[in-house]
Formats: sequence, structure tokens, C-alpha cells
Amino acid sequence: MQIDIISIVPDLLKSPFEHSIMKRAAEKGILTVQLINLRPYGLGLYHQTDDYQYGGGAGMVMMCEPLDNCISELKAVKKYDQVIYLTPDGKTFNQKTANYLSCQENLLLICGHYKGIDQRIRDIHVTMEISVGDFVLSGGELAAAIVVDAIGRLLPGVLNDETSALTDSFQDNLLAPPVFTRPADYKGWKVPDVLLSGNERLIDEWRFEASLRITQEKRPDLLED
Amino acid sequence: MQIDIISIVPDLLKSPFEHSIMKRAAEKGILTVQLINLRPYGLGLYHQTDDYQYGGGAGMVMMCEPLDNCISELKAVKKYDQVIYLTPDGKTFNQKTANYLSCQENLLLICGHYKGIDQRIRDIHVTMEISVGDFVLSGGELAAAIVVDAIGRLLPGVLNDETSALTDSFQDNLLAPPVFTRPADYKGWKVPDVLLSGNERLIDEWRFEASLRITQEKRPDLLED
Repeated sequence: MQIDIISIVPDLLKSPFEHSIMKRAAEKGILTVQLINLRPYGLGLYHQTDDYQYGGGAGMVMMCEPLDNCISELKAVKKYDQVIYLTPDGKTFNQKTANYLSCQENLLLICGHYKGIDQRIRDIHVTMEISVGDFVLSGGELAAAIVVDAIGRLLPGVLNDETSALTDSFQDNLLAPPVFTRPADYKGWKVPDVLLSGNERLIDEWRFEASLRITQEKRPDLLED
Repeated sequence: MQIDIISIVPDLLKSPFEHSIMKRAAEKGILTVQLINLRPYGLGLYHQTDDYQYGGGAGMVMMCEPLDNCISELKAVKKYDQVIYLTPDGKTFNQKTANYLSCQENLLLICGHYKGIDQRIRDIHVTMEISVGDFVLSGGELAAAIVVDAIGRLLPGVLNDETSALTDSFQDNLLAPPVFTRPADYKGWKVPDVLLSGNERLIDEWRFEASLRITQEKRPDLLED
């Protein structure tokens, strides 16, 4: 799988992709992330990529031409399954979308900045708009990193133990049960007896009931879907 | 404001805090982010920080002792307004929580990995559990970066134009209206006439109606709050 990311601050994303799971995915050749600097596509002597918004008001807008030129150049040599714009008014990202995107071959992610990108780029090029949540970030870069990470860990061979991803929160609309590791008694705080019992059936039951109870308490909305 | 972040891969977070808005916030002394490496608190020759989970099953769990020692050491010298654990089963992060956290002085963020941290650390130390969305990441680091970014840009003096943050999506439960910048005609795709009219009242009306229409179409749930 290949994910290309257009950004005016591509260096911001360097370290997240050079560590941990994403590093492993790259080394194994399972996921290649290409950071594309929008700046060289900027206009004039200063490679301008943003300008004041029409109609007035605070905050700059990313211009059509640099983005159009950059995206068009990329599309000329590669077919993208989705051209994704990260934006607070996009469709809220969730595990289902991560599962769907992890089955694609080529994705192009566009990181906005300031008040966002010119609406015409959204109309012309973008096929999918994703919001990572109901909050505003200083740019789309961290949202892109989240999307890449959530997708990347689902790709076969990336996690050491693939069954691990299947028991994560959200894969079955339930939050995960509490987890414990050694020691069984830490300064008087103890691990529930059942988890030490070795009785698989009882442990499975306890975990399912804990998942259900936690989901009912914290996120009853997940049970309504 | 100071935000401390505990992680087993602190280097993963280096570049996001060295660029763009977060860099500016640090340079101005408005927001200091300290990355704390959990590894030196690990046990034994290999500085172990995780172990198999009680009750069996795939995925490792982050152990009590290294986290307890690290957190206790930090708490001994500083009073944290909140000790936050980033976890998919936490309370869903949103702009309201970002606003609230941006009014605090000292925050401690704990990044989980694998199946998460031992439940007892959550019971003993954690005062707030935050999920950035209904998806699973390979670790809490990118979630922490999102939280820091969403908070950081709200701090007075961080954004160049403070009124900009006030017209963002979610601050008034509405998604932002479309934005446009020069040129007015790009390859035949035109900016709406009203935005070129110079009539502030008409522009405000158009923007409000566009916000309302987009919110009704894409996120009717926001209008129900």
C-alpha cells in the first residue's frame, strides 16, 4: 500500500513515520508513506501557497493553483483509490473507515492549514473528506498521521500478533475490557481473581461482561448502532 | 502552560512539536511540552515496561511499576491539574474539552501502547481519560499530539490572529462555511458573487446560511446539542 501526503510542513510528519509500528510497516515494504512538499508548487518568488479569503475575515486560505498543479502531477502518474482531504467538516473517522481504507492500494491525503483549502479544490479533486473528530487542529498533518496509523496497523504483517487488532476496542462495537499484567499484587492493588484462575471459559465470560458494562457506562451510543 | 508527556517512544513526537504553530508556542514561551521517556523506569537489565496480560490473549500490557515510579516522581515536584490517559475507551475529545484544558496550568499525558496500561495505574493515578475518536491507534502518542495541538492553538498569543480560532468549526456548534481565495475565476471555476460584493451584511448572511446548510447536511447531530 502507498499513501502520499501533501503538506506545506512535511517535516512535521517525519518522526511519527520513523518509529514504532509505522517504521516496521515501512521496513517490511507493507506501507510506503511519501511526504510531498507543497511549497515548490507555490506561486512567484516566495512560492506563495495561501492568500486572504474572499469576503474578508480572519485566517488565510490555501490557493487553488499550487494544490491543483501538485495533485494533477501526482494523478498523472498514479491512480488513487481515494483523494482524501482532512477537514473538521468531513465525515467523522472511525474504525469502519479505517478498515475500508486499509483495503485500498493508493491513497492521496491533503493536509489543510489556516482556514482550509479553496473550496474549488474540494469540488474538483477530492473524493473523500475525513474529520478525525469534533475539534480544530492547526493543520491537517496530525489528522493525516492518525489516519495512516489507524490504517497501517490493520495491514497484514504489520502487527506482531494479528489477532491483537481483532480484540481491540470498536472492532465489535464494544470497548475493550480492563487489562492487567504482573505482579498480581502491586502495593496491595490486586488483579481480579478470575484472570489468575486459568479457566478460559470464565475469563472469556468476565471479559465480555466487563466490555459490555464499560460500554454501557461510557459509550451507550455504540450499543445502539 | 506546561504539558508533560510520558511515552516509550518519545522521539516519535519530536517533529510535530518542532514545527508550525507548536514551534511558535514554544518559542514565545506560551506552551512548553516536555517529552518523558518511560524506558529508564523499566525493570531489570532490559528496562522492561510491558508484559503478557493476565488471563491470556494476544497483546502486551504496560506494567504498573515503571509507570507508577515515573508518574510519582513527576507528581512529587509538580501539581498537575489533570493526569490524562489517552485511550480508545476514554471520553471522546472535542472542542469543549480542548477549551477547558486550554485554561489549565499543568497537564500530564500518558501514552499507552499495545493493549494499554495496567488497569491499576488508571485507578490510582489517572484523573481524566480521553479518546480522540472511535478508532484504534498503535499508541497514544499521536492522540497526545492531537490534544496538545488543539489546546495549544487556543492559548492567547499562539495564533497570529486570535479571532481566527473563534470562527472555526465547532466553536458555535456549526461547521465552517466554504472558503475561497484568489483568483476569482480559476479555469472557469468561480467564486460565489456575494463574496466579491464587498457587502458585509450579505456576506455574513451567506456564510451563516452556508454553515447551517452544511451542518444540516453533514452533521445534523451537532444541531441537536
